Amino acid sequence: MKKLINNPENAVRESLEGMALAHRDLIKVHFEPNFIYRADAPIKNKVAVVSGGGSGHEPMHGGFVGMGMLDAACPGEIFTSPTPDQMLAAYQTVHGGAGILNIVKNYSGDVMNFEMAAELAIAENISVKNILIDDDVSVKDSLYTQGRRGVAATILAEKICGAAATAGYDLQQLANLCRRVNLNSKSMGMALTSCIPPAKGSPIFDLAEQEIEIGIGIHGEPGRERMERSSADKITEMLALSIIEDLTYTRIVREWDENKQEWVEIELVDLSFQPGDSILAFVNGMGGTPISELYIVYRKLTEICQKKDLNIVRSLVGSYVTSLEMQGCSITLLKLDDELIKFWDAPVKTPAFRWGI
Amino acid sequence: MKKLINNPENAVRESLEGMALAHRDLIKVHFEPNFIYRADAPIKNKVAVVSGGGSGHEPMHGGFVGMGMLDAACPGEIFTSPTPDQMLAAYQTVHGGAGILNIVKNYSGDVMNFEMAAELAIAENISVKNILIDDDVSVKDSLYTQGRRGVAATILAEKICGAAATAGYDLQQLANLCRRVNLNSKSMGMALTSCIPPAKGSPIFDLAEQEIEIGIGIHGEPGRERMERSSADKITEMLALSIIEDLTYTRIVREWDENKQEWVEIELVDLSFQPGDSILAFVNGMGGTPISELYIVYRKLTEICQKKDLNIVRSLVGSYVTSLEMQGCSITLLKLDDELIKFWDAPVKTPAFRWGI
Repeated sequence: MKKLINNPENAVRESLEGMALAHRDLIKVHFEPNFIYRADAPIKNKVAVVSGGGSGHEPMHGGFVGMGMLDAACPGEIFTSPTPDQMLAAYQTVHGGAGILNIVKNYSGDVMNFEMAAELAIAENISVKNILIDDDVSVKDSLYTQGRRGVAATILAEKICGAAATAGYDLQQLANLCRRVNLNSKSMGMALTSCIPPAKGSPIFDLAEQEIEIGIGIHGEPGRERMERSSADKITEMLALSIIEDLTYTRIVREWDENKQEWVEIELVDLSFQPGDSILAFVNGMGGTPISELYIVYRKLTEICQKKDLNIVRSLVGSYVTSLEMQGCSITLLKLDDELIKFWDAPVKTPAFRWGI
Repeated sequence: MKKLINNPENAVRESLEGMALAHRDLIKVHFEPNFIYRADAPIKNKVAVVSGGGSGHEPMHGGFVGMGMLDAACPGEIFTSPTPDQMLAAYQTVHGGAGILNIVKNYSGDVMNFEMAAELAIAENISVKNILIDDDVSVKDSLYTQGRRGVAATILAEKICGAAATAGYDLQQLANLCRRVNLNSKSMGMALTSCIPPAKGSPIFDLAEQEIEIGIGIHGEPGRERMERSSADKITEMLALSIIEDLTYTRIVREWDENKQEWVEIELVDLSFQPGDSILAFVNGMGGTPISELYIVYRKLTEICQKKDLNIVRSLVGSYVTSLEMQGCSITLLKLDDELIKFWDAPVKTPAFRWGI
């Protein structure tokens, strides 16, 4: 295992320490429990937007803490959910009196822990709404997930909801907006290589030299198919067409009912893309892939979108939702409207996204 | 070879096409000869700041074209110098009447081709000043270089000179400023793994599973030593102390003498860092290393700088000067003063750096 780490046990902590030192103007890090938060938190009367999940996907989520995006992020150990008490501590630090929007990637452990965290917070009179991201069209029910997995659309939701919270949206408006971003998004990823979690010391899955995996999860969960390695154009086509041709998908999510004081189930149906849609096209690197290759994928993606009469009006190319040093990419398409475009374009100042300020 | 490419012969072109599509608001790309230029070029009466070099180091240089940084960048084939006619075409496109500052990494091929390009431009009454970057302290005289190699300080010079050009510095002032950034900078890199240029299809050098290389060049040129893999802290210490304890270095560079109409040699001496210096600390990823590991390096670097009484007043952590998918990092320290800080902080809007605007 070749990594720039010291003792694998301390890798997450030391990385957070370095991050705090490198971005002192933007963020602070609290240890034991671990969370990253805006240096100027809490922001009074603003809904605090929080996310979290296992480490190993950097810059998600900690790299998106700052003005116009997240108020706090809770990193678990590598590929491991953060704990409820950890999230509660983050809520208490950043709560400005207007509630907490919690953006949750759909993994069973995350969902369970974030629900427990919400209950703890609600008992302390902090309103929390958990909105699930489950944008990965590749498989249903996976190694760590019931339903579809949450992947790269998460950071689009974080950006858009972070901007809307800054603009004064209340908690219910933000919950609706976040849900809409999720229902308007579809993603799919692929891996050229595996990755090695430091504590494990060996690859999380094995791929032969000639083999790639289409539909991989961000923790190496099995995808749709293993195949002979192929050209960037062919891979892009497989990912993009799976997304564009995906049918509407119905899922049951749990929502806290304030009157009943219990979780209730609601049914949500996403979109399928239609000719004429305006979209944001996001080509994401898995961590070990050079940006020059992501541009090759983006090039083909624009051609496919054009053929399908999807208008790319915003784009993002880079390694933002990663799996350590894995080589590969994912594609996310988000159907846009004026409200989403306005909040996407709004100023942001975080370690990983910064524009307009 | 596992890469997101199509035909290796077209990798550079297709990547540039994707880049142009992804950043239509910032840049344009001219093909045959290839160069990336500001969408709003030429800027009248502003010195145009240009750089170039082999591809494979992305986002350097094309990712730094835009407002407040480069006016144009000339990408050669992977790890291959751009040609003089290519650079001349870029100069002609972005020249706003106030001359061209050309930032040249010290590789013999680049130096030769940029000198030829300058002569061609001067013959067309376009003033060009070539300033050499040779910040890599690890070795003197290398596979492709006489003297020290030019590495990550290049993008610091591009940022600072780009801002100064925007602020109205004339060509001679910019040449002096660029030279000062170079003489105030020292860098050293290391590799955990090799990388595979697409056209070659095999690693540019071999490193055993237990082996790392300290002082590596960005084209895999041999460094100072091969050693057993080691901890991030130990590696950081080796790189940082090599930089901090480096003595002053004297080099002869060639400068165009406008009166004599020929190249004349001048002697330049860089600094060695002194207790109390204010510095910019830059931890750069080689392409395949996750940002979480770069923060672990940065953490140790801050500790070492503190012990040496060097005050880190600005920092940069990320993969900006890469060698395809190589795993590893480099450290660059730049001695700052008020003028350099002002231009470092100035607004910039490019694909890879964006802040303040």
